[in-house]
Amino acid sequence: MMIIELNQRQETILQIVKDNGPITGEQIAEKLSLTRATLRPDLAILSMAGFLDARPRVGYFYTGKTGAQLLTERVKKLTVKQYQSVPVVVNESASVYDAICTIYLEDVGTLFVINGDSHLVGVLSRKDLLRASMGKQNLESVPVSIIMTRMPNITMCHEGDLLFEAANKLINKQIDGLPVVRDVEINGNIKYEVIGRITKTNMTKALVQIALDDFH
Amino acid sequence: MMIIELNQRQETILQIVKDNGPITGEQIAEKLSLTRATLRPDLAILSMAGFLDARPRVGYFYTGKTGAQLLTERVKKLTVKQYQSVPVVVNESASVYDAICTIYLEDVGTLFVINGDSHLVGVLSRKDLLRASMGKQNLESVPVSIIMTRMPNITMCHEGDLLFEAANKLINKQIDGLPVVRDVEINGNIKYEVIGRITKTNMTKALVQIALDDFH
Repeated sequence: MMIIELNQRQETILQIVKDNGPITGEQIAEKLSLTRATLRPDLAILSMAGFLDARPRVGYFYTGKTGAQLLTERVKKLTVKQYQSVPVVVNESASVYDAICTIYLEDVGTLFVINGDSHLVGVLSRKDLLRASMGKQNLESVPVSIIMTRMPNITMCHEGDLLFEAANKLINKQIDGLPVVRDVEINGNIKYEVIGRITKTNMTKALVQIALDDFH
Repeated sequence: MMIIELNQRQETILQIVKDNGPITGEQIAEKLSLTRATLRPDLAILSMAGFLDARPRVGYFYTGKTGAQLLTERVKKLTVKQYQSVPVVVNESASVYDAICTIYLEDVGTLFVINGDSHLVGVLSRKDLLRASMGKQNLESVPVSIIMTRMPNITMCHEGDLLFEAANKLINKQIDGLPVVRDVEINGNIKYEVIGRITKTNMTKALVQIALDDFH
């Protein structure tokens, strides 16, 4: 794979094909007062890059793809599965005190709360726990189910989701992490098994890898 | 800007130049049993893309850059300045209780602590505040200076730093945000003015923008 800055003539050719396509190489050459032979390398480059397509006896037409679109296609294709971390869960009957201990022990920013069937029922952020710890209650006697964000207000994602879409959810919902879930149908109801965790830390790592070209 | 997948012949030419460069176009053509004219577009493309460089009377030589390297150069050039947020600061005499209120009011994950001269003296994370809130003290009477991370243990960055290097610091130090500082010399000592904040949220936004090609 390689990247090329378009030169002025290539930009002009692109514009001509955008405005006039389908158009033959001969006609483009005429418009530029150049010979067909002079243009051949430019047309070859623009076709190889996917900007132009050529049909026999019809001519060149514009594919509608910009170089920038092509550039970011690789980043766009990254999936949650490639970057997710192991989830850290607590049972819904655990106390807020237990949850805070777990946050420190596991060194994570977000905990997922599951019920006795191991299905996702809630999410706890550091912010939720900090708020609770400011209250007057005894943290050892308050169950996490009192303070957690619960279904159906949990923002989730799936392993096959695009990484940048998960990143967009984190930004839009102003949260630090998402559970990665697998849907299971039980008696006609959809339940969610937590199989991963995707966070702003994972996104930061992805950014570093892209900059160092250590991604696939 | 455009991206091209190298074809087999271009890959072969690259390998020949890597192994034999500097080498003339004529010599490359000979090795491939092709005419110089046939190779001209390929050599033009490889040169434009920055893979090959040509010196008159010497020939083509390999620049050592891979397509992947070129692809990520744009991401590598992004700076902290392009993505930083406004910093949120508290005075070193503020109480832990005040700091927690500020974290909620400003909705940030990291606070910077300054002294009376407005110089950086500490950093407070949600984790630091959560730990403090679990203690037995009255939070309104404990100053943040007791629990903050203090100089010289603060990881910082500057506006002109590369974004991916700041991202790398966040990952390596396992922290959520860095102060962006400006150095000021006072009586021969370097002090730091906080002019910005760069966090995993900024990194996540950068990732989304790269995927949507909304960056420069």
